[in-house]
This record gives sequence, C-alpha cells and structure tokens, in this order.
Amino acid sequence: MRNGAKPPRPLPYERTPSAIYAQSFATVRAEASLDRFPEEMQAMVIRLIHSCGMVEIADRLAFSPDAFAAGRDALRAGAPVLCDCEMVGAGIIRRYLPAENDVIVTLNDPTVPDLAQRIENTRSAAAVELWQDHIEGAVVAIGNAPTALFHLLELLDQGWPKPACILGFPVGFVGAAESKAELAARPRGCDFVALRGRKGGSAIASSAVNALAAGLVEEKR
Amino acid sequence: MRNGAKPPRPLPYERTPSAIYAQSFATVRAEASLDRFPEEMQAMVIRLIHSCGMVEIADRLAFSPDAFAAGRDALRAGAPVLCDCEMVGAGIIRRYLPAENDVIVTLNDPTVPDLAQRIENTRSAAAVELWQDHIEGAVVAIGNAPTALFHLLELLDQGWPKPACILGFPVGFVGAAESKAELAARPRGCDFVALRGRKGGSAIASSAVNALAAGLVEEKR
Repeated sequence: MRNGAKPPRPLPYERTPSAIYAQSFATVRAEASLDRFPEEMQAMVIRLIHSCGMVEIADRLAFSPDAFAAGRDALRAGAPVLCDCEMVGAGIIRRYLPAENDVIVTLNDPTVPDLAQRIENTRSAAAVELWQDHIEGAVVAIGNAPTALFHLLELLDQGWPKPACILGFPVGFVGAAESKAELAARPRGCDFVALRGRKGGSAIASSAVNALAAGLVEEKR
Repeated sequence: MRNGAKPPRPLPYERTPSAIYAQSFATVRAEASLDRFPEEMQAMVIRLIHSCGMVEIADRLAFSPDAFAAGRDALRAGAPVLCDCEMVGAGIIRRYLPAENDVIVTLNDPTVPDLAQRIENTRSAAAVELWQDHIEGAVVAIGNAPTALFHLLELLDQGWPKPACILGFPVGFVGAAESKAELAARPRGCDFVALRGRKGGSAIASSAVNALAAGLVEEKR
C-alpha cells in the first residue's frame, strides 16, 4: 500500500471454503441431469462435473451398475490406485484414501522408454505393462493417454488378472473416444466408469478416485 | 496367453507418438477457429485445445497482444513458474523449459492453513501470498482455484510487483468465470491469457506453460 493512499477495496468474491463447495454442488444439482444414476454414482457424477465445470458431461457417462461399490470396496480393502500420469496422481486427495492406499504412477520409470520401443507402442502404453504385479483388484485411473487404456484392454485379453474398477477418462482427438467406447462395449468383466467422446483429463480422473474414496465429504461439513 | 489358444488380436489404434501428435494437431487446425490469433498464439491455442479435447475453447480465450512473447521471454530469462496447485506443476514438461526454470507450488507449505485463517480466505489464496519474493517478472499459471486468481489481483492492487504473464484457467461454478472476467477487464498492467467462463483446469494451465516453453515442438519432429 502506498503512503497516504486509501487502501484498495477488496474484490467481491466468496472466500469461505465450505460456502464455495456448497454453492458449487448446489449449482451442479440444479443444472445436471442426475436422475438416471444410482444414488452413490450421483455423488461421483457431481464430483466429476465439479472438477471440470461442465454439467453436460453427465449425459455422456458410461458405467457398470456396480462400479461405485466395486471401486469403493477395493479402496477400503487397501487396493492400490494405478494412474497413467503424474497429474492424475497429484490430484488424488491422499487424506481421503481409506487405507493409506498406494498411488502408483509408472510412466517415468527408467525402463519405460526402452520397453515402449520394444513393444512398438507409446510410453504411456509401456508404463501399463509395469502394473502387472499390482493390477489384480486395483483401481485404475486413466486421465491422459488413450493408448494406456487400449493397451490395458489388450493385456486383459491376454489373460491379465482383472482390476476392480477402471476409471476411463483419456482425453483428446486420437483414440480417446475410441478407447472409451471399447471399454464401455466390452469391459472384459471389469467394473468401469468412462466419459464418452473426446473430453476427459487428469482432473476428472482424479476426482473419480476422490469420489470412490470419500463421496461428497465436503457436503457434510 | 493360455496354452494352445490363439493369441488375441491386438486392438486397432495408432501407437506411434509422432503420428498421434500430427493427427491431433491436424484435427485441431481443421476444426478450431484460429484466424483471430497472432501466429505464436495459435501454437498456444492448439496446445490448449489438445490438452482438453475441446476445439470450442478457442472462441472463449481472452489475451493481451503481447502475452505469448512476454511469457516466452520471461522463461528464456530464467523466470520461475508459480502454480496454484500440484497438478499444474505436475503437467509442466520440465525438459521443455528453456532455463531449468523453477516450478513453484506453495499450496502445501505448512504455514498455509494458519495464514488462510488469518486472512479469512482459502488455502489457495493464502498460498499466493507466499509468492511475494518470486512474483516480479514470473509466469503465473492458475488451473484450479478462482480465489487464487482473485487474491493475486488484490495483491497487485496493493502494490505487488508485476508478473510477466498471468495464465488464468481456474475452473468451476463459483468465481471461476468472474475471476477470469476481472483479469481480462483489468489486467493490472500484466500480460495475460484467460479462458472465459466455467471451463478451465490444471491440464489446460500446464499446457499454456508448455506452449510458452516450446511452442508445438512435437510438430517439428
């Protein structure tokens, strides 16, 4: 503040976290079409919408009927969360995880570039191969790479053990819509949630994990 | 693979990174309205769209004419990148940064919760106060919290030194549209890029930094 000058006026905006959450969730409930979702899934859908500011994504979500329970129970039982990129891992709110669950991101493992060359696929796909010892009963969160989701489905076709729940939110113009359509059409016996089309991203994928871990915990405060 | 069984067929999808990038950028160029942007900004807009799968965001971008050059030159001169959350930091591709620039995220600093109580604002806003020694000439990337952007503007009103470029991509239903409208209407003498409305997010904010750092480097490979 300059000498003698009147202090500048603060800007008019909501500063109280609980009020911000309440107003956000109320707006989502007022604007989104949530009727077709079971109640627990509604909490996830609200959190997904909250993460991206787009109520219209509710209309493009595909999911298996038991997806929420399967993912929630896996986390409670201590299952790890397998993420396709560091951003997804960074968005998972650790204090919400019910069993100090491991959050595993293998993308930057030093063996990945060579492995990608050998399997003639992307680094994101190669990183999925390193999930082999953790995949059984795990929660998978894909928020970036279509090739990670496609390659996971291929590895399941080759006989890999099944994860408890696949959260499919790869994003973009090449393979994102196609990989999520493949997951929704042939989920290989896994529970899943997926956002059809090009939209997706790491914030949405992280929020799906946070929903499985804690529902809409902020609403109850 | 099971004994004697025929190996399952691989799924049909693009696995070559350079082809994926080329096809993505070509789709964005074909579908997005880029004409109103200067050439360097077009590279940023393509990268922003690529990060979220939404060509329509091009129509809602506000920016100052020199935003790209200001941000790029700041990074070349070694300026730090100040991020409002860990996800934004995680999405910045470190090898693209021209001067091994520091990427600073203060949200989880142990002093932040008490500071938030004292200033009666969110943790995200309190974390911005810890940028004071780094703000002059910095690149600011906000991909989550409207209160972080609002509070930065308040601190500039109180006489803080100016950052070189503010990348404004807070997301959501409470304050996101309003904080970005305030930045675009009264940028306090700073260069800026902002996505009007509710849409935004950490992946878009990170991609804006990556664009300043490297343009569309993948296109030239």
